[in-house]
Amino acid sequence: MKKLLLQLDTDPMASVFDGVVAFDAGVDHILPYGGVTPENVQDLVYGAMFTRGGDKLKNTAIFVGGSRVEAAQAVVEKIQETFFGPVRVSVLMDANGCNTTAAAAVLKMNRAFPVRGKRAMVLAGTGPVGMRAAGLLALEGARVGITSRNKERGQNTCRLLRELYGVEVTPYELDPRDQAAVQEQLAGVELVLAAGPPGAVLLEEGVWAELPQLQVVADINAVPPGGIPGIKPNDDGKERKGKLCFGALGIGGLKMKLHKAALARLFTANDLVLDAREVYALGKEL
Amino acid sequence: MKKLLLQLDTDPMASVFDGVVAFDAGVDHILPYGGVTPENVQDLVYGAMFTRGGDKLKNTAIFVGGSRVEAAQAVVEKIQETFFGPVRVSVLMDANGCNTTAAAAVLKMNRAFPVRGKRAMVLAGTGPVGMRAAGLLALEGARVGITSRNKERGQNTCRLLRELYGVEVTPYELDPRDQAAVQEQLAGVELVLAAGPPGAVLLEEGVWAELPQLQVVADINAVPPGGIPGIKPNDDGKERKGKLCFGALGIGGLKMKLHKAALARLFTANDLVLDAREVYALGKEL
Amino acid sequence: MKKLLLQLDTDPMASVFDGVVAFDAGVDHILPYGGVTPENVQDLVYGAMFTRGGDKLKNTAIFVGGSRVEAAQAVVEKIQETFFGPVRVSVLMDANGCNTTAAAAVLKMNRAFPVRGKRAMVLAGTGPVGMRAAGLLALEGARVGITSRNKERGQNTCRLLRELYGVEVTPYELDPRDQAAVQEQLAGVELVLAAGPPGAVLLEEGVWAELPQLQVVADINAVPPGGIPGIKPNDDGKERKGKLCFGALGIGGLKMKLHKAALARLFTANDLVLDAREVYALGKEL
Repeated sequence: MKKLLLQLDTDPMASVFDGVVAFDAGVDHILPYGGVTPENVQDLVYGAMFTRGGDKLKNTAIFVGGSRVEAAQAVVEKIQETFFGPVRVSVLMDANGCNTTAAAAVLKMNRAFPVRGKRAMVLAGTGPVGMRAAGLLALEGARVGITSRNKERGQNTCRLLRELYGVEVTPYELDPRDQAAVQEQLAGVELVLAAGPPGAVLLEEGVWAELPQLQVVADINAVPPGGIPGIKPNDDGKERKGKLCFGALGIGGLKMKLHKAALARLFTANDLVLDAREVYALGKEL
Repeated sequence: MKKLLLQLDTDPMASVFDGVVAFDAGVDHILPYGGVTPENVQDLVYGAMFTRGGDKLKNTAIFVGGSRVEAAQAVVEKIQETFFGPVRVSVLMDANGCNTTAAAAVLKMNRAFPVRGKRAMVLAGTGPVGMRAAGLLALEGARVGITSRNKERGQNTCRLLRELYGVEVTPYELDPRDQAAVQEQLAGVELVLAAGPPGAVLLEEGVWAELPQLQVVADINAVPPGGIPGIKPNDDGKERKGKLCFGALGIGGLKMKLHKAALARLFTANDLVLDAREVYALGKEL
Repeated sequence: MKKLLLQLDTDPMASVFDGVVAFDAGVDHILPYGGVTPENVQDLVYGAMFTRGGDKLKNTAIFVGGSRVEAAQAVVEKIQETFFGPVRVSVLMDANGCNTTAAAAVLKMNRAFPVRGKRAMVLAGTGPVGMRAAGLLALEGARVGITSRNKERGQNTCRLLRELYGVEVTPYELDPRDQAAVQEQLAGVELVLAAGPPGAVLLEEGVWAELPQLQVVADINAVPPGGIPGIKPNDDGKERKGKLCFGALGIGGLKMKLHKAALARLFTANDLVLDAREVYALGKEL
């Protein structure tokens, strides 16, 4: 029986990236849909639920993507409401690569320098990747902070992490244009991850190079100058200034592996919902 | 040469249900299109007609679906106008599952209790499934009536059945809220099929249980309370109150088989047009 | 690794024709997109660029189609701007079949009567097929003219051919309703190709039959009465009135072969851009 992936994308056109990765993950066929919303997703999901019965249901699965993470999250919620009892299929959400990127970054950091009991800071940690990475670091036992220019946004993110992941993360109000304040805030921090948008420099090279306790510096931003100048996109554990560095492409290789592994995993059961934690757990098995 | 199915759907998004069933029927690839209308279908059909020549044309076929049966019917008509001479491909129309559902219901009923010479009534028989089921029952030799709350609608349906199927079906004006009138109308009827929309109770349990000549009770509606309370969706010939009962899921299993068999049949020739009668005939061979 | 073709179409619905031909050319899966514009193509192209690395990139390719050649050309330009360095995939543009039709017509003509040093005229030669055919004929060494009812349009086309192909083609202002003028202009011409739209008669049978030096008469228009009445659509080198005739279907068989060969070629490298000249060269190898 063919492995079919329903590719539900909240952007007007279904992502080519996600389509190609699905084929490379061993999916036999994709059924791609753009412009998916909570309002129109129900009939699509019914089509996945009511075509293959019993144990065969696991041969159909759903991927939810798109550039807007919150829109995709709303679609995932509607999908889960649509399922009932055992009549369901497995779901992977990875809008904007948020789950696979967060999982890959934390896996890289934790392998380089086990985070349990350590101090970690996620710069610009209120976005989709940053929030998830902060949650994963906390679940691994790190003492985690996130920074945001906006106090309330930081607090909201920490509240959300408490609800969703059951972890305590500390919000810091911090404007990256004030690198003296950044330096002060990072005193004693052992791992830093920059999770900001393209174009925003979050941590200057002159600052991180001089932080004595800092061991791991990671940046998910590949567009020059990156969120942490001095790290190269291809860095994959490269030592610079005495710190282990991870750039966006160094993290990206593992991210791609996780994406494929998560897609393959979907077809092993009909009731999986793969979010950041499940993808992370899967990455630890690889 | 790959078996390609053009999936033409009148809804904005091509049905996942129909796509999955196509793969399970052995189609190699589907080319799915949503938002298909008589106005935009011609170029799509040309693409099916002018790419594979002669005997190879049978490796391409067209499925027309969507939730609105009349819109799909209009697309089918335009498709047939677009073909010329031997330059054509086979077509299956099954908008809203109307043809496969009607065929499956009548097959089930006729196997349980051969309908030739018997009295059959299709409740709410002016809709897409009801009309087709009435026509198939009449073609099998039953004396068929359909009920409708609207006299004119019932008469129109019977006129259409005379034109399309060459059969005589009798219209009855009947409001299901008046179950005394329903009971009276069903006196002497041996088979009943409920073909109404979700939410409409057409025949109360207290009524059908007490009709002495009634042998077969079938309902295509799976949403509680169903069109005929007392029948369970999974009933597949189950005896209740001395009658053989068929529920929506009991009929649905055969419907799915017919859908797949009809799709597979498309690729055996390039000039088939599969409607309710052809699907029904195919079901008798299964 | 599966061969994936991104089918980018500027029409609202991706062409069925191009999809079917892609499968018949050996593509494993197509990812079809309608409504593609220079504004929305970039993310689609990124998805092709960033999913398969290094030598594996050649397993992904792009086809650009649609009924409007200029719109497709603009998409191709944007695609090429989006690539950088070795991170690219191969591209075939064949909107409205312009490149494969032009290449097939010129291949047929040149095989029937080698064009080097000969006089060739492309009637209504400013459209997508006519322009490309004129360029290919000139590259083969013919002395080429194109006709247009509009003087300026003809001059623009010749200027474009000089820029794009580095060839000199002569524009002639000619109204096909004045067949006496057509006859005069074609004196001494040895090959004629009609490249006009359906419905426009460009060269009457009574005229071409009497042109003593004319050896080859070709017409890409299959809709009766065709651009050159007297040629039959199926003519494939058929001698009529002492001239070798090629009709639209006679040319169409080779066009289809070129289309498939070009698609197959895409997957041999990741940096090809197949336009009329490349498709023509490919046809000479067949």
